[in-house]
Amino acid sequence: MDFKKFLEIESIEAWKKYIPTLSIDSVIFSFHKNELQVLLLKMKDMESWGLPGGYVKKTENVDEAAVRILKDRTGTENIYLHQFHTFGNRNRSEDAFADYNDDIWYKQRFISIGYYALAEHSQVKLVIDEFSSAVEWHPIEILPEFMMDHRAIFDKALITLREQLNNHPIGYNLLPEKFTMPELQKLYEGILGKKLNRGNFYRKILRYDILTKLDESRKGGAHKAPDLYSFDLEKYNSALKEGLQGNW
Amino acid sequence: MDFKKFLEIESIEAWKKYIPTLSIDSVIFSFHKNELQVLLLKMKDMESWGLPGGYVKKTENVDEAAVRILKDRTGTENIYLHQFHTFGNRNRSEDAFADYNDDIWYKQRFISIGYYALAEHSQVKLVIDEFSSAVEWHPIEILPEFMMDHRAIFDKALITLREQLNNHPIGYNLLPEKFTMPELQKLYEGILGKKLNRGNFYRKILRYDILTKLDESRKGGAHKAPDLYSFDLEKYNSALKEGLQGNW
Repeated sequence: MDFKKFLEIESIEAWKKYIPTLSIDSVIFSFHKNELQVLLLKMKDMESWGLPGGYVKKTENVDEAAVRILKDRTGTENIYLHQFHTFGNRNRSEDAFADYNDDIWYKQRFISIGYYALAEHSQVKLVIDEFSSAVEWHPIEILPEFMMDHRAIFDKALITLREQLNNHPIGYNLLPEKFTMPELQKLYEGILGKKLNRGNFYRKILRYDILTKLDESRKGGAHKAPDLYSFDLEKYNSALKEGLQGNW
Repeated sequence: MDFKKFLEIESIEAWKKYIPTLSIDSVIFSFHKNELQVLLLKMKDMESWGLPGGYVKKTENVDEAAVRILKDRTGTENIYLHQFHTFGNRNRSEDAFADYNDDIWYKQRFISIGYYALAEHSQVKLVIDEFSSAVEWHPIEILPEFMMDHRAIFDKALITLREQLNNHPIGYNLLPEKFTMPELQKLYEGILGKKLNRGNFYRKILRYDILTKLDESRKGGAHKAPDLYSFDLEKYNSALKEGLQGNW
């Protein structure tokens, strides 16, 4: 069956199952090989890339839909998920299905609620579903062409994530349990897209008081073994909720 | 005509004019008498208070709808407006119109996009429209009972506004053109809901490099006349866009 026919059949169920005009798009970040990466997929019959997304069931809260969609796409549930913006310009979605009948579900004016997720790279299973021809991680420094307004959605997610660095701790879902200071600095640099001064970084991150210095260092290598740290989860979660030390 | 009949007639037009299932709620803050205040209204036939809101026309972008609704409610356009969260739990709106027929516009499951606005108190005209019996400013320290989930929407707006203090300058829409340091500190304290140390406040706010110290002081009063400041709008707008000095 060709893809157009497939969508026409899916459309009938979609009208019954989902709230109209409302979609969800997810910007799923991970940190791998010292790079911030984002999960993109290619829809069948399309050349450009898009963000994984879905719709909200009539029986679901919107946040529940976001969790379900993320699970369907990545196979994992325990991921930091944050709603960051809703995108509602006219014609952001209508033109993508210009060749289809006007009553097809996919050709509606969709208002899309954006969520970003921070996922551990190794935990994510890449699921190619019936709508997609490819699912891949892409380093944020080298991104392909996006469909619709998905580039703007990605950009807004990244800006929000950067701002969140001033309000909340980050790293628990992105780094291994034990990590070195240079690894943590690389994560911040990957998100911010710029180099940070090592001394300033150490001072500032220690002032947040969310790290535990471990009684072990990393073995191997010719240089002095670097100290290992982990997050103090009680303080980390408190800072997630109450904001970081040293803010207003 | 009673209010129920009025809503039934309005409903017919609403179905034609607006995107279904989507609403906007605005949390309009101002700073007056050294207090942070919020604009609340009472719907006819209801005892509890609500946030001013509205719907999105089929011909409008969502952000345009937010501007239009704000203008209708306050008579002003040049207000800082920021989308902060979308509220999509089941049954957040359906029960409020339990006594009405199921096909009335107002009884839908609404997903509501929240915007907060920072308005100059004296510029706002309080408009009582056909749906409302009262429109008033309320100090955020003494709030009445809210309808539906509007208390949760208000709380989320305030949390977001507090977090924004760590990322962006604030005050241009809330203070008069010339102000003293104690007045600026009172604004921050009003938003944060806590007292700040005077010395720390001065140091931190000066480090942001968004203020111009004026060659004048406020006349009158027995004490030493306090220095006046204004915002350096070029630096202020740049910090709005790029983030504050001293952040990551």
